[in-house]
This record gives sequence, structure tokens and C-alpha cells, in this order.
Amino acid sequence: MERQHQLLSKIATNDRHGENSPYFDGWKAYDKNPFHPTDNPDGVIQMGLAENQLSVGSIIDWIEKHPEASICNPEGVHMFKDIANFQDYHGLPEFRQAIAKFMGRVRGGRVTFDPDRIVMGGGATGANELIMFCLADPGDAFLVPSPYYPAFYRDLGWRTGVQIVPVDCDSSNNFQITKGALEAAYDKARQDGINVKGLTITNPSNPLGTTLDRETLKSLLSFINEKHIHIVCDEIYAATIFGSENFVSISEVVEEVMDCNRDLIHIVYSLSKDMGLPGFRVGIVYSYNDAVVNCGRKMSSFGLVSSQTQYLLASMLSDEEFVDDFLAGSSKRLKKRHGIFTKGLEQIGISCLESKAGLFVWMNLRHLLKEQTNDGEMELWRVIVNDVKLNVSPGSSFHCVEPGWFRVCFANMDDETLDVALKRIHAFVGEQKERETLPTKTKDMPSKTKCWKKNLRLSFSSRIFEEGIGSPIAMSPHSPLVRART
Amino acid sequence: MERQHQLLSKIATNDRHGENSPYFDGWKAYDKNPFHPTDNPDGVIQMGLAENQLSVGSIIDWIEKHPEASICNPEGVHMFKDIANFQDYHGLPEFRQAIAKFMGRVRGGRVTFDPDRIVMGGGATGANELIMFCLADPGDAFLVPSPYYPAFYRDLGWRTGVQIVPVDCDSSNNFQITKGALEAAYDKARQDGINVKGLTITNPSNPLGTTLDRETLKSLLSFINEKHIHIVCDEIYAATIFGSENFVSISEVVEEVMDCNRDLIHIVYSLSKDMGLPGFRVGIVYSYNDAVVNCGRKMSSFGLVSSQTQYLLASMLSDEEFVDDFLAGSSKRLKKRHGIFTKGLEQIGISCLESKAGLFVWMNLRHLLKEQTNDGEMELWRVIVNDVKLNVSPGSSFHCVEPGWFRVCFANMDDETLDVALKRIHAFVGEQKERETLPTKTKDMPSKTKCWKKNLRLSFSSRIFEEGIGSPIAMSPHSPLVRART
Repeated sequence: MERQHQLLSKIATNDRHGENSPYFDGWKAYDKNPFHPTDNPDGVIQMGLAENQLSVGSIIDWIEKHPEASICNPEGVHMFKDIANFQDYHGLPEFRQAIAKFMGRVRGGRVTFDPDRIVMGGGATGANELIMFCLADPGDAFLVPSPYYPAFYRDLGWRTGVQIVPVDCDSSNNFQITKGALEAAYDKARQDGINVKGLTITNPSNPLGTTLDRETLKSLLSFINEKHIHIVCDEIYAATIFGSENFVSISEVVEEVMDCNRDLIHIVYSLSKDMGLPGFRVGIVYSYNDAVVNCGRKMSSFGLVSSQTQYLLASMLSDEEFVDDFLAGSSKRLKKRHGIFTKGLEQIGISCLESKAGLFVWMNLRHLLKEQTNDGEMELWRVIVNDVKLNVSPGSSFHCVEPGWFRVCFANMDDETLDVALKRIHAFVGEQKERETLPTKTKDMPSKTKCWKKNLRLSFSSRIFEEGIGSPIAMSPHSPLVRART
Repeated sequence: MERQHQLLSKIATNDRHGENSPYFDGWKAYDKNPFHPTDNPDGVIQMGLAENQLSVGSIIDWIEKHPEASICNPEGVHMFKDIANFQDYHGLPEFRQAIAKFMGRVRGGRVTFDPDRIVMGGGATGANELIMFCLADPGDAFLVPSPYYPAFYRDLGWRTGVQIVPVDCDSSNNFQITKGALEAAYDKARQDGINVKGLTITNPSNPLGTTLDRETLKSLLSFINEKHIHIVCDEIYAATIFGSENFVSISEVVEEVMDCNRDLIHIVYSLSKDMGLPGFRVGIVYSYNDAVVNCGRKMSSFGLVSSQTQYLLASMLSDEEFVDDFLAGSSKRLKKRHGIFTKGLEQIGISCLESKAGLFVWMNLRHLLKEQTNDGEMELWRVIVNDVKLNVSPGSSFHCVEPGWFRVCFANMDDETLDVALKRIHAFVGEQKERETLPTKTKDMPSKTKCWKKNLRLSFSSRIFEEGIGSPIAMSPHSPLVRART
């Protein structure tokens, strides 16, 4: 073992890829026993994967109407040679233009993006790593408000050697980032001899589903300018907005605040969430810093987007009518789905953090914890994964400082599967309540713990067999453990 | 400037990306003034880009016959949803199977590859970096026989911090790698306190076009086993073989040599050269080491191949008849092209290193150097780029220890452009000879230096205007400076 360790690198033999966590364990549980309405109705339902499958129909419609966008059929094959040979780090000019325009459109057309500042990365995963390589040396740190995306350990830190310094947020103010918490985290890091190079925010937030308002963004800009550190705004959920208010991007605030140092400001974007195309590996770094654009472009050689995919997307995103319809439709579908799910939870007394974005809710199960600790959270989580058979993700995976919160994804499945998931939660909570009214002695009887499941199965299985459900297996067919970005 | 340096990382502000070299300067010269037979007949001809454009017609034929391989037209769109959502680090099972089979077929079917050991990287660029991240820590070194691919500085070392220790080879034995040279480089590195973690070879060699024989491969395996260091075999030109003998891959030798430690052996592969599809960014690490496969797969999250492209290639490469025809046809076309070019050079007394692989020749212009030094080489190179207007690459870019060698690519252009290039070389060498017979005094007259060009233009321009040449501009339409892999 020691010899093997010497043989490989420290990166290969440390665990900073972060896959040894309940977040990924939940995926394993799903992977071993995936739900299928007819073939495996008792299987685990995947609610740990932030995937947007609600709008893929619109994209398919567009593709059927535009065969010329393919370089692999008679209508498009005349482009094959040029495209297959193209490997410019800058990307196809029409791809950069289309992405820049789309980014503006996603932000309500209130801001424009310069195609010459579009730098490609291999998905948001690659883009986040790329910007870290540009901005920080091994051992340097980035502040990241908690709760935050579990795979940030891998993306920001695994190969770059950059540390994450959490900025603790909690439910007392709905997990909002305060200047006090930022200053405290910054000062503590400095006292520990850590060189803080920047702040990474996710807006809209994964896992919270909340967005930052203009004033908060301004205060963040003021904070980073004061400290002369960077801000990286991961805005990969910018178009998954279903509230009535506009989403405010850092790019809008940059144009309003005249005295900020633009060299400190960088945006990460992707099409995996907003368009629901994670397989296409489109990651973007948009930097206001010329040196970062130049350097990042050289680095993008390690994770360029396939030119075949660039060409398809350039054609699709240049179609303004399609983009407008897609964004409006996507927002509508997300709103409806979010409404159905949160109302279903409300009926049994489960509340979620109020949100208006994302593909998930931040569900509060504190009242179901046996003890208000991480251990209590993990115990409840294991019951939910193993017995209720829902893969949801515990807050501790997101470095949440407060136990009892769970991220639950609602957009990677069809209506029927969501219905099954809700019924399981209802049955489980009903069972919990029933147990609470029983004498203490019988509470832990194993036979009792399982009975909700039996009832549940009887209650909905007949319905599933009766209805024609359009290939629901296609909703989550892949090994989720190894998904590149969630 | 100092502030900017502190603001960004050491990686962003060092020059280890290696783009400040004559190799890339030549590309700039082409980029500013690209040759076109009618629009710009005096422009620079791109002979610095190792791109295989000779067989793209076969691929286009296949695509026209197999519209179902596209997920972007009526025949294939039913797969769109599954494919666009797929982002498993392992890759589509059918993609891994097809690549593994293709790798075996390219190596004459004498060896089989296990699909479960196929790890994806973002092109060979990303694959080479990925394997370095797995094997070596910052400051560690890899031995690399010279001359070697100029962008290895970027690929192997820029972000990983890994050093390259050249193993000097020269023309005295046709640039063959000897155990003596390896030992000397290894010992010298150790004396300098450098931790040598492995050896990277390119077989077939870029820039030499030569291949390693079985005995040499065995001696390399014996060397790395003795030192307990890794060997990474970059075999991205494995199918660009046009000699009569078989190419021998390290994978064959691994199966023959029983007492070698397989944990030390890794192969890098790509479809950019052998299939001529650099835009598709298919890089592969094939490792015999389980820990590297597991770790590399996690790292491939930073540079996955677009699932759209995986699907297309899985379909194409699974067609055995197509693959057989493609490989045979490609080899034939390369042989013919290589023959025309080297014979053209022979006619004016220019010899090349004997080779049987690759998309380039290693051209010996030592007799044209004013002095046998790097400066002499650079002086001649500047004349070739600026006056003869051919972008060829000087040996010094490849860390060649012997001045006067140039890499010249011959497969990225059509027959007519190659003909123009040969005529220019003929005229240039004729001019050089003429100058040698003149009294010393007049040798450096500027008017004289240019006269070959005038004659040359008259001699072939009429022919070009007469003949119908199928869109030759499509041969090299892109900014070559930023090409991802050469």
C-alpha cells in the first residue's frame, strides 16, 4: 500500500475528490436499486440529481425542424469537414456569439456579454477548476457561503490545491449571506495564516434555490474590492427561475457600480442546468479580466467542447424565437412542478425554505430528528434512503451548519414518479406521527417500522399498472454515482 | 504589473504554457497571411500543423449512409433525450467498447483492450495532463526522449508542475533512444535532486515519424521496471503507418513480457490524428493500473467527451467493415503523399530521416545553415517562413540537440497546395545554390534574395487559375495559433 502511494501522486492518493460522502452514497443506493413504475416499483427514487428534464421536448421539437444543424446527415454533412477539424481554443465564432447572446437573454436582456470574453471549459466542473487555476496557488483559499455544492471540493480544490473556507449561514435569516459572516470567515482564515484569494458564490444557490438581491450583490462587490480579492459567480441556474421577480446577475451590478475593479470579477456558466444538456459538457468562464481571458483560453485546451456540439448549439441558440419560447416554457414548467411538490409537502406539515429558482427544494425535517445533531440527521437520512427509498441529500453534505435540512430534486422525473415520491413521504410521515403517539416501548419494533411501506405499495401500485406511462425508465437511466455535475 | 501578478496565480503568470516559441510564431505568420491558390497565392503555406485531411472523405461517406447515428435528425432524434442527459464519467458503454475494439484493430488485431480500462480525457492534451496528475507531484519529473512535441511543456507540466527531463537523441544513430542516454538523463536528474517518476515516449514519434521496434520497447520496459518508474506511451499516431512493417505497440510487448509490473504502464490515445477528428476532442488514457483507472475516471469529469460525439463515434467505430476500409485507405493515401513529397525533396538534394509513420517528415537542412548552431537554424527558419512563406517548424522547438532539422507536415493540404510548396522549396534551394556560386560580395544583396519568388510565381500561377480545385481554403481555415493539439 505504501509503495502504491509512492508510485502515484498525492492528488491520486488523497481523498479530496470528495466522493466519499453521503451525497454520493445516496446515489449508490439508487444505482443498486433504481425505481421503475412497473419493473421495480419498490426501488429507490432518484431525488439527489439536479437535472432538468422538464423541457427536453422543446429542444427535440427544434431539432426535428432544423436538420441542417446536424453535420451528420445529408442536410448538414457539407459542414462536416470544417467542423470536425476545428479545434480553436476560442471556439467557433458563431458558438461564442450565440452563447454570449443567450447569457444576456437569460438575464432578461438587461445586460450584454462580449463574445470575446467567452472562454470554454469542460462543463461547469471544468470551468470552475479552470478559473481556480488562474486565480489561486496551492494552499490559497476561496470563501464559499454554506450550504454549498458538495462537489466543490473536487471542482475547486482537488487538483488545484485550493482550499475552501466556508462562510457559515443558517436559518435564522433564511441562510442569507451577511457581511458579518464574510468578515468573520475572512479574518479567521487570515489568523490561521491562510491566504484568501477570493469568494465563490452560487446564484441562484445550489442547494437553497434562493437568489441574491441587488443590495446583497453590491455589498459583496464592496467586500471583495475592499479586500482586493476575486469574486467568482457560479450562475449555472440563472434560467431556472420560476418566481415573479427578475433574477439579478452580478453582470448587471458590475455595470451599475462604477468604482469596482472589474479585474476581480468572473462568471461561471453552463448549459447543463438551464438547457438540461449535461452530456454536452458546455462550461463557460466569462471574465472581465483580460489576463484571465488570455490565460483561461490557453487552459481551455484541456477541456474544449466538441466542435460537433458547438455547431449544433450555435445554430439552436441563434434562433431567438426558440430561445424566448424555451425560456418562458421552462420557467412555467418549473413553477408548476415546484408548486405541486411543495404543496404536497405542506399537507403533511413539511416546510421548505422559500425559493424561486433551481431544480430542488431545501426541505426542513428538523422536527423529525431524534437529536438535533449531524448524527441525528444521518440517522434520519439513512431511513429515508434505505426504507422510504428516496435518494435525497443530507444538509451536512452541503456543509450546512444546522442539522435537519435536506436537498430534494424535483425536475429529473416525470409527474407520475413525483407522485409516487410524495406518497412515500406522506406514508412515512404518517408512520412517524403514529409512532409518536404509541408507548415508548413499542416505538422501535422492527415490524412496525416497515408497515408504512406495505400500505403505501397497496395504495398506488394498481394505479401505476393501469396508466400508460411514457418510458419513465428513460428519466434516469445512468449510473448516477459518476455523474459529472449536479 | 506586480499587483496583477499577485492577483493571479503563479500558473497564470508563468510562461510554462510554452506558446512563446518559434513553433507557434510560425503559426502566427500563417495566420496573418494564409495561402490561397487564387485569392492569396503568395501567402504562407501551413506545413506546421499535423492534421490528417486525407481520409475525411471516407468518414463523410459513412455518415451519409448512416443518418441514424445522428441524434439530431428524424432517424436518430429518439435518442436525443438519453444522450444529451448522459454524463457518466465512464462514458457510454458502447463508446468504450467501440474505442477499445478500434484500438485493437489499429494495432493489427494482435492485442485486445479491456473497455473497462478506457478513461476519457479532453483530447490527447487533456489525457496527457490527466495521467501526469495521477502519477506525479509538482516538482517531480518525467524523462522524455528528444526531439519531442513542443506543447508537452503545456500538456505535461503547465498546471501539474511536473518537469520534463529531456533524453538527448541525435542523428548519429537516427535519433534512436538508447539505454545509455536514458541512464545518463536519469542519473543526472537524480544528482540534481530531481525525483524522476516516469518516462513518456511518443510512438510513432512526433516529430520523427519513426516507430520503436520490439527490442527497444522491451529495453524500455526493463529500464522502467528496474527504476520502478512509470512509462506513458503516447500512441496517438498508431494508425498513421505507411511502411510495410507492422507498428508495435507497448500493449503487445506487455502481453509478451511476463515479469513486468503492469501498474507502471499507461497508454495515451486519441482520434485527432488517426481519424483526423481533432475537433471532437476524444482523448483516452488506457492504464493497466487499477488505481489510476479509478482516479483517472474521477478526473475525467474535467474533460469528458460530449455525449453527442460519443454516440456518433460509437456507431461509426462499431462498423467493422468501415474501420477496416478506413485504416487501409488512410495508410495508402499517407504512403502516396509521403512518397510524392520526399521524392520532390530528393530531386533537389534534401533528405529526410527515414520514416514510416506520422503526418510529417523530419527534414535535414543542415547543409543550408550558415553556421551549425541554433542561431543558424533560426536564421534559416526565418527565411523559410518570411520569404519562402512556408510554415515549417524548427528542430529547436522540439528540443532537438542538433541544429538544422525541420518538421514539415504534408497531410493537412490538398495535392495542388503541396505542389506549390514543393515548387517554392525547389526555387529556394536553386537560389541558394546560385548564390553559392556567386562572388561572396554579392551574396547578401537584398534584391537577389527575393528573385526566386518572382520566377516561382510566374511558373505556377497560371496553372492554378486553370484547374478547378475543390475549395482548398477549407483545408486550413482556422486560426492555427490556438489549435489544441498538433
